[in-house]
Amino acid sequence: MRTLTRDIAAESGKQVEVSGWVHRIRELGAISFVLLRDRSGIVQLVYDNKPDFTHESVITARGEVRANEKAPGGYEVAVVETELLAPAAPDLPFQVNGDPDKVGLEAVLDQRVISLRNPKIRDIFYLQSSLLSSFAEYLRGQEFTEIKSSKLIGTGTEGGTGLFAVEYFENRVYLAQSPQFYKQAMVASGMERVFEIGAAYRAEKHDTPRHLNEYVSLDVETAFIKDEHDLMDLEVEILAHVFSCVERDCARILTEYDARVPSTEEIRKTPRITHDEAKEIISTKLGRRVFEINPEGERVLCDWAVETHGVEAVFVNAFPRKKRPFYAYPDGQKTSSFDLLFRGLEITTGGRRINEYDMLLDALPKFGLTEEGLADYAQIFRYGCPPHGGFAIGLERLTQKILGLTNVKEASLFPRDRKRIRP
Amino acid sequence: MRTLTRDIAAESGKQVEVSGWVHRIRELGAISFVLLRDRSGIVQLVYDNKPDFTHESVITARGEVRANEKAPGGYEVAVVETELLAPAAPDLPFQVNGDPDKVGLEAVLDQRVISLRNPKIRDIFYLQSSLLSSFAEYLRGQEFTEIKSSKLIGTGTEGGTGLFAVEYFENRVYLAQSPQFYKQAMVASGMERVFEIGAAYRAEKHDTPRHLNEYVSLDVETAFIKDEHDLMDLEVEILAHVFSCVERDCARILTEYDARVPSTEEIRKTPRITHDEAKEIISTKLGRRVFEINPEGERVLCDWAVETHGVEAVFVNAFPRKKRPFYAYPDGQKTSSFDLLFRGLEITTGGRRINEYDMLLDALPKFGLTEEGLADYAQIFRYGCPPHGGFAIGLERLTQKILGLTNVKEASLFPRDRKRIRP
Repeated sequence: MRTLTRDIAAESGKQVEVSGWVHRIRELGAISFVLLRDRSGIVQLVYDNKPDFTHESVITARGEVRANEKAPGGYEVAVVETELLAPAAPDLPFQVNGDPDKVGLEAVLDQRVISLRNPKIRDIFYLQSSLLSSFAEYLRGQEFTEIKSSKLIGTGTEGGTGLFAVEYFENRVYLAQSPQFYKQAMVASGMERVFEIGAAYRAEKHDTPRHLNEYVSLDVETAFIKDEHDLMDLEVEILAHVFSCVERDCARILTEYDARVPSTEEIRKTPRITHDEAKEIISTKLGRRVFEINPEGERVLCDWAVETHGVEAVFVNAFPRKKRPFYAYPDGQKTSSFDLLFRGLEITTGGRRINEYDMLLDALPKFGLTEEGLADYAQIFRYGCPPHGGFAIGLERLTQKILGLTNVKEASLFPRDRKRIRP
Repeated sequence: MRTLTRDIAAESGKQVEVSGWVHRIRELGAISFVLLRDRSGIVQLVYDNKPDFTHESVITARGEVRANEKAPGGYEVAVVETELLAPAAPDLPFQVNGDPDKVGLEAVLDQRVISLRNPKIRDIFYLQSSLLSSFAEYLRGQEFTEIKSSKLIGTGTEGGTGLFAVEYFENRVYLAQSPQFYKQAMVASGMERVFEIGAAYRAEKHDTPRHLNEYVSLDVETAFIKDEHDLMDLEVEILAHVFSCVERDCARILTEYDARVPSTEEIRKTPRITHDEAKEIISTKLGRRVFEINPEGERVLCDWAVETHGVEAVFVNAFPRKKRPFYAYPDGQKTSSFDLLFRGLEITTGGRRINEYDMLLDALPKFGLTEEGLADYAQIFRYGCPPHGGFAIGLERLTQKILGLTNVKEASLFPRDRKRIRP
């Protein structure tokens, strides 16, 4: 019966069986100390001989637990029997037990199975798993239904740019950039409130520390809203719940990364400024006129939010119509849409959508689109679709910003970019 | 402030505002009765004139709640004010308020936004949402980490058959048939226990009531198992939890579909028979010798399980090596792998995987494969991978079998088959 390394202390004086990976071997004359790593932590094993296994081999060891104040956690196992479950070749691509910050990003991603053995790197994904859970938990509590929509779409709803083509039997289809149209269809179908956690694809060629060509999108759509402020209110409460779950469940990981999450009180103070106001603030801060919000501007706005509102986040709304897709709900030359910037990075785009059939038909030609080209989409609105809107949070970006990672790829298990299609 | 239709009774004698879709209009002389449908149910509205909206239009109505024993639920709203939020065109493709069983499958799928307005059809996906939640909940409770792996793979690990090709910048990649190799990589990385909920793709041309070309796979992989019985034990407990959550949270839907789920006691009695025993049972039952387990055989085996063990499920294990992929853990000419059949349909394939590098290198040529061709995969096992295995449950098939749906496509919001690539 296996004992996890974290539970060793409770077994002091008893025989236990522990299983895991050989993290470190230290030979001191006739005695050897082996650190054994499992999913729960690390325990020291003591051998009265030279163990005949390599670093990173998988073993099961049996022996008595005894107190030793010099051992990690204060206890160790005096091994009497070892079983080698799977030997590791001696040519490890890099040391698992070293400083993960000294392993380059390319090596971390090329050798995922090895790099994740470093507890600090693996912890990124324990935290990410917690984000997936708390996001869904909050929305279920608000009567949202979780949906799974197709990622294979027959036509590019916004033209073919930015889409990956798939050879699908006799046809050519595309990987969906977002489930937004399906979310809207579900709202119109009467589910009213839906969320989806799924892959999204962008065939964009840029290779930056903030972009992935395949990412996980946390998507929300809800009906019977008054305006986009209802959506921002909802996102604030989602994030408040997610952050408080991270604080409760991932305290050790936050400490390890010297990271913190905004408190509920802080995140509720997130200011809401218009796109015009945002440009003003950036221009003033930078001492020169800016005409759009670029990555530098996003950082400036978040600094401004800290100084003026004590929170590292800011909603920017009232984007000009020409900067948003055709489906953004118009408000004169502006739209009822918004971005959320967090710690200098856009982590959400959202907004109210056009829900009236006539308004949609009016909008399409302004964007060079036709009803025929968007027949299935237009159909959603033909038979009664309530006022609604939604938003999407990028899972990897949220993970990145919570932990202060340099590159969003660090927050993706198997990231895909223009050149990286493996492992 | 909106009141949901299910909460009307508590507001008797008060003014309320209700919003939703116009389900039915009945004009009786000077008075009209309108059934209003929202995500929570249906309420009767009373008008003292002819309402000027069409079926399925979205409205907000205000008025006083009063008891009326003839109204659905015993209460109705005497409307004084109506706001038309979104009119529905009068040419509905079919009646929403009719018998859903009279709408053909093609119409249901072609007109998803309309067909889902029928509460009975929509309820399929409320139940499915519950399955997603309870599956994850059980595994999190057992310290499984939720992962999100890439669906774009550089090479077909089992050859190119059955894979959809994607034009990925200058490269050609494929849509993953399953996340199994990534799950195995995560086991080897030290996460030990992982699950993933994600899309899986099969480029298979058959069009049957049991196949989808894109489906949602509930994937599990776990380390330090003794043999495949540990995996079957785990699946039984997952299903026991999922079924008991369905019984608790979806009782109304089960009644509506005249369906039931196996009790925990029943599902724990699921028999485990070998592939050879399974063929014997089928041969005996059918009165002729069978050499493989086809869909008819799967039904026969489930009937046998009901008669002999009182449960509509059966595990078949010890599949011959040539019927399983190269990574199945060999046991002589058999493998430590299994299927789970439920109500006449295979809903799970799983098994122990080869975890020893040398054993893997030995297996590859037997299947016409090379280490070079599977370099990233082989790498998983080079540096210490514990004994492990896993399985996958098809979400749509599980949904189908719980509710007794005729076609698995009914359990997919936007199914994809050889010809269907929209909506």
